[in-house]
Amino acid sequence: MQNIRRENIRRNERLAAMTRILTSSPNQVIRLSRFAELFGAAKSTLSEDIDILADTMATFQLGCLDTVTGAAGGVRYRPAITQAAALDFVQSVANRLAEPGRVLPGGFLYMADILSMPDLVEKMGAIMAGQFYHDEPDFVLTMETKGIPVALMAAKALGVPLVIGRRSSKVYEGPAVNINYLSGSAGRIETMSLSRRAVREGQRALIVDDFMKAGGTAKGMMDMMREFSVTVVGVCVVIATMEPERKRLESAKALMVMDEVDDEHESALIRPADWLLNQ
Amino acid sequence: MQNIRRENIRRNERLAAMTRILTSSPNQVIRLSRFAELFGAAKSTLSEDIDILADTMATFQLGCLDTVTGAAGGVRYRPAITQAAALDFVQSVANRLAEPGRVLPGGFLYMADILSMPDLVEKMGAIMAGQFYHDEPDFVLTMETKGIPVALMAAKALGVPLVIGRRSSKVYEGPAVNINYLSGSAGRIETMSLSRRAVREGQRALIVDDFMKAGGTAKGMMDMMREFSVTVVGVCVVIATMEPERKRLESAKALMVMDEVDDEHESALIRPADWLLNQ
Repeated sequence: MQNIRRENIRRNERLAAMTRILTSSPNQVIRLSRFAELFGAAKSTLSEDIDILADTMATFQLGCLDTVTGAAGGVRYRPAITQAAALDFVQSVANRLAEPGRVLPGGFLYMADILSMPDLVEKMGAIMAGQFYHDEPDFVLTMETKGIPVALMAAKALGVPLVIGRRSSKVYEGPAVNINYLSGSAGRIETMSLSRRAVREGQRALIVDDFMKAGGTAKGMMDMMREFSVTVVGVCVVIATMEPERKRLESAKALMVMDEVDDEHESALIRPADWLLNQ
Repeated sequence: MQNIRRENIRRNERLAAMTRILTSSPNQVIRLSRFAELFGAAKSTLSEDIDILADTMATFQLGCLDTVTGAAGGVRYRPAITQAAALDFVQSVANRLAEPGRVLPGGFLYMADILSMPDLVEKMGAIMAGQFYHDEPDFVLTMETKGIPVALMAAKALGVPLVIGRRSSKVYEGPAVNINYLSGSAGRIETMSLSRRAVREGQRALIVDDFMKAGGTAKGMMDMMREFSVTVVGVCVVIATMEPERKRLESAKALMVMDEVDDEHESALIRPADWLLNQ
């Protein structure tokens, strides 16, 4: 009885510690040998631990635990969010963005606060990442500034670095590739600059941005990736406008869709994107 | 025996789920009633769970679990990192930054890659946050662009929003306060813009930035906060240069210190800041 007790306390400790370790390194395969070393437990015991953890994660919808077999095998956590929970969450963000007083002169929507709240951008990033695990991007690319927090959190969920495009080349980024692109929202030619050493030929990129109207900036990022011989596996934005319906980029995935607003309206019409409803 | 088993499995589940929930909302007090509802467990049982969790976190150096008493009481997770682990980690980052090839023409250091790696900035942000929990900041302020990832992670660890100062006012940020400041590294007058609605009078700010040379940008952020009647509880940067020794801001806390480099040197001399060694 005493032995069972002690054994169970050890299991309790292991499970709590493993949860912390796995969830703080999303999408990274952690070898059982690392846990074996840390806890001084047999691999068979750890396999049981993993089974319990996987069940618990599923029961309480806290993400997904996969066992990866093979030479580089181990266990991997992904902050998977169920379709229903993702829809609920995106709807709650859409409701906040639709509150009166957010529409600025010119029909612009104030969303800088929402886009810098760590808990909100972390969930948005996890939902975005969930759509692209199978495409195995090597990094997430965004264009400064407002999209950086959500892009960082998407990168964290995917377990890859973030790469940030700049509006002009900076001395502290070293040699850079500059391209020009047509920004729909600014209605003019803009410059995008990316450090030569930021990415490598043959890598795979997921593009994340905060807002898409005509799609010019995202298109610019795709052109930039072509200059680097990088494959773009997808484009994800927080909000896309309804108009223009034909964007420069048809395949982009948005979390929310916004009807165009004008100055006279006090609030915007914002709703979760169709793909969140339909899956 | 069967009962003990089932009871322990339930405890296993609760501990894993509680770990995930607590660690994903750092510095937020989570009420026991929320766990009671989620698990259908008595508060006395949950208190035992919390004790086990707190011990486990301490044993495996995974952070710190506090019980908060009173009307708004509950339990709170902080990603506290031990002094020794913080020093080890900062030393490893300093070593990477000191690798040959990072010094650019003009003596600038390429660190954009390190500053956008989610796991690295998350640890840096947690170390920074650990120095300021007791000052209870209401938000973290940074200036675009390179410091945004680490500032976001500091904000996440503190459980507060991030506020981003811009180099010029943007239509989608609404009415803004603009100030001019002397940037030491750029050697010229720069503009800083912050949306009126980003912060409220009487709040408390922690300033986080990536790099400090003369301290002009940080000083600019402090001046900006004065315009908003906001108290600055501290200034934290990833790297400060040794020179000039007298910076515009004496009280800033850096994770690393860098000797000035010039073009002829292939690598920079970078070491963890003294306070990481001395505590």
